[in-house]
Amino acid sequence: MLTARGLFGFAVKSPPLQGRGQVRALSASSYESLVDEVSTTRRLEQISALVHWDSMVTMPQTDNHHAARGLQSQALAGVIHERSTSPEIGKLIAAVDETTLKGKELANFRLMSKTYKESCAIPAELEKKKAQVSNDAYVSWTKAREASDFNMFSPLLNEAFSVAGEVAALRMDGEASVYDKMLDDFERGLPSARVGEIFDEVEAALPPLIERVLASQNAPDPRPLSGDFPLAAQEEFNKEIVAALGFKGRSDVSVHPFTTSFSPADVRITTRFDEKEWYQGLAGSVHEAGHGIYESNLDGDLTVDSPLSMGTHESQSLFWERHVGMSRAFVKFMGPRWRKAFGREESDEEIYRAINTVKRSLIRVEADELTYPLHVILRTRIERDVVNGKVAVEDIPRLWNEGMKEMLDVEVPEDSKGCLQDVHWSGLAIGYFPTYLLGAVAAAQLEHHARVELGNFDELIERGEFDKIQAWLRDKVHRHGSEPSSIDELFKEQLGEELKSSYFIKYLTDKYSRIYGL
Amino acid sequence: MLTARGLFGFAVKSPPLQGRGQVRALSASSYESLVDEVSTTRRLEQISALVHWDSMVTMPQTDNHHAARGLQSQALAGVIHERSTSPEIGKLIAAVDETTLKGKELANFRLMSKTYKESCAIPAELEKKKAQVSNDAYVSWTKAREASDFNMFSPLLNEAFSVAGEVAALRMDGEASVYDKMLDDFERGLPSARVGEIFDEVEAALPPLIERVLASQNAPDPRPLSGDFPLAAQEEFNKEIVAALGFKGRSDVSVHPFTTSFSPADVRITTRFDEKEWYQGLAGSVHEAGHGIYESNLDGDLTVDSPLSMGTHESQSLFWERHVGMSRAFVKFMGPRWRKAFGREESDEEIYRAINTVKRSLIRVEADELTYPLHVILRTRIERDVVNGKVAVEDIPRLWNEGMKEMLDVEVPEDSKGCLQDVHWSGLAIGYFPTYLLGAVAAAQLEHHARVELGNFDELIERGEFDKIQAWLRDKVHRHGSEPSSIDELFKEQLGEELKSSYFIKYLTDKYSRIYGL
Repeated sequence: MLTARGLFGFAVKSPPLQGRGQVRALSASSYESLVDEVSTTRRLEQISALVHWDSMVTMPQTDNHHAARGLQSQALAGVIHERSTSPEIGKLIAAVDETTLKGKELANFRLMSKTYKESCAIPAELEKKKAQVSNDAYVSWTKAREASDFNMFSPLLNEAFSVAGEVAALRMDGEASVYDKMLDDFERGLPSARVGEIFDEVEAALPPLIERVLASQNAPDPRPLSGDFPLAAQEEFNKEIVAALGFKGRSDVSVHPFTTSFSPADVRITTRFDEKEWYQGLAGSVHEAGHGIYESNLDGDLTVDSPLSMGTHESQSLFWERHVGMSRAFVKFMGPRWRKAFGREESDEEIYRAINTVKRSLIRVEADELTYPLHVILRTRIERDVVNGKVAVEDIPRLWNEGMKEMLDVEVPEDSKGCLQDVHWSGLAIGYFPTYLLGAVAAAQLEHHARVELGNFDELIERGEFDKIQAWLRDKVHRHGSEPSSIDELFKEQLGEELKSSYFIKYLTDKYSRIYGL
Repeated sequence: MLTARGLFGFAVKSPPLQGRGQVRALSASSYESLVDEVSTTRRLEQISALVHWDSMVTMPQTDNHHAARGLQSQALAGVIHERSTSPEIGKLIAAVDETTLKGKELANFRLMSKTYKESCAIPAELEKKKAQVSNDAYVSWTKAREASDFNMFSPLLNEAFSVAGEVAALRMDGEASVYDKMLDDFERGLPSARVGEIFDEVEAALPPLIERVLASQNAPDPRPLSGDFPLAAQEEFNKEIVAALGFKGRSDVSVHPFTTSFSPADVRITTRFDEKEWYQGLAGSVHEAGHGIYESNLDGDLTVDSPLSMGTHESQSLFWERHVGMSRAFVKFMGPRWRKAFGREESDEEIYRAINTVKRSLIRVEADELTYPLHVILRTRIERDVVNGKVAVEDIPRLWNEGMKEMLDVEVPEDSKGCLQDVHWSGLAIGYFPTYLLGAVAAAQLEHHARVELGNFDELIERGEFDKIQAWLRDKVHRHGSEPSSIDELFKEQLGEELKSSYFIKYLTDKYSRIYGL
């Protein structure tokens, strides 16, 4: 019996080797040699994403598997770090004459230089410490959350803020503050002052609206959401919907939904399902498909062909999840398929109202689109103030509970349902939270302009002609990758105006006033 | 909605970085530093195996996916090659005082040194040429096979033999000939003279036996093999059987069955199914599980903790496929489960006879265990004579067709069913074929000793107590990894005698004489 054993590789074609500097002819420009060198590292990063995907989706979930995988990921991370900071790259960068470059090449060169400079700014010892603290803080967070005791976490959270601050400070390049630099890592080029402006407007507008919504006697009936929804039927239904939206990659099941890209050709999403509630699974699929469509439409394989920022990324997932998927037009498209898939009888209008129910929640990831922004604003304010030294890590539970009371009028009964609910800070992802709301704000702004430019936005959705919407997003957002210096610059160039909160506030106000009959 | 986006890594714990030489304390010995350095490369190789598995099993099969994946594999292969031949390794090897090492450490050191020396022996240009020729020859082979025209393939096959010979010659280290070196790459430490001895005995014994078998009026009835076997039922049945044998890893579906190992903790097999015939799928699963069990039982994470040779590997897959899976005792174990899974009524004896049917075949991978050895002997003789300059590549079709007529009394109607049927030579895997038969010979020898030492071999199988058999194989074969210098040395140490053909010949003679009533 033939065994085409990949292990020994005889049935696998070995590709031509590509060592450093072996690929380009000797006459290649320094820019081209730099791109080659960086491309190899990019491909290793793509492989790293695959290794992670496998760990989450296909690898058996035992301690032994994770231990072996940990060593592998570590080896690859080491190689990637070494290549990203190699003196070879520095020499190639120094040899490039910037005046010979323009347009996308210039943007690509500047991004490579910035990345290199920032990577080299961190001494090896600090890099190791960062990884260590991140590891330890994560472990500490899981334990503290289980015990619902913030005090167990605060020593390592202090360290996490401290080492993240140290790293950011060393990498600063003209940003106004350490927190601005942290923000820049996730939301490139958007100063915290701009974030503050936008968030202040949202914070001023939403609480009164939420109060009126929750006081209304005309709340939707949530019953269409629950019942018996066999997993296989949900999986098939979601795949049908996601394919209709135009996402062409794999979708699998994992504990936490995520999107990953190994190249624009190979983008994969995951979902999770609940047998008693169908909508969270679908919303997750549509959300991830939105991320996936962005990754699929990036315009090439250069460093600059990467998503602009996390907020931009979130604007794409939320555009599809909310502005398409939670719209009345979409429910008209989906309704007949849904009734057939699950043998239910609720009308489109009943489904539409049910999926747009607003309620106060302690937990960010369970919050609806109307209350969600306040969860983000609270976290952003707290992390910014800790980084800026205005408050101490030890004050977090108090600030959290006061904020939740003030903004959402809920009492936090214990830390696990309050300041211990999110993983981000333990992973040194400080400056990440704001991107969720920036994405929401950007998505509403995109919807406004799509309506104006496409003319028949609702009809396209109702008829399932999502390709025209995707083409519009590709043109306005996806194909530009990281060429603009910020989402403000992208929007100014493509929509004629910077990111602004008014569309988001108007979208929520109009929509929920209608649904709740205000 | 939370998106735990692996892409940006915030939900993923970054492991502590492990750069070169950063791990061990300064006082670490050169040997320990060498092991660290080589381990990182081994882990990258494990990742490379994962990348390959994904390409075969989970990646969507489009040209775009394969193109992107090709660039990724190439980048990783480049890094692995660079690390494997780095002067750093050479310095560490030179600094080790061999007299301070013993046992497994010494074997590990010698294996690392040998691998390094051989890797460095190939100039970069030749390495590139090898990869290129392998690529081109593969493409040429697929086209020639489609057209069933050997002449289309012969120019590139000439190149393949030539570059493989050049590479082997540069890597020689005391082997008697270039072909001996090629063989050594797949069957470590076994000279072609030993292969010749064993193969001559098999070749003398089998043709007369085959003639008597095929002349018998008492051939099995093959009807239990065919019918309607729904894929889902087959998949479930095979998983149940493979789990009972003691293989604990994933099994998936792929076009060609294979086994791959990312570490002893994470070994995966694949199978393919035919709705009209259940046995090939099961035999494939059991075969791959045999490979998988070997990989799972390797005794650690060092270079020396790797399979000894391809023949040894094949002895494990064939032990389970043939000496367990095709035995009467196994059918007694499997029969009731099989009848239940597929709603059939044939008796154990009818199943046993059907799966042990002998027939002449043109195609190696379709051949039964009795005629298969002759397919291997023919290929071995041809490749050896080409390498030794006794015959020309252009003579292959004639030699092939004459050999098939002489040994198996079949006429080869066209090249696609003759000398173009196998992928191996196009991939420069010259010296690989003999390991199939060496594995078969070794498996029969292992069965003999297992029967003697375990006492109740058949009863263990019939009762499904495969763990005792696995433990015996682990003790005799698996745990030794690559510590012995050859399968001869392993068998001498563990079984008290070198590899010999007599058990294999006796096994086939006894078994088929009984089945065919000779």
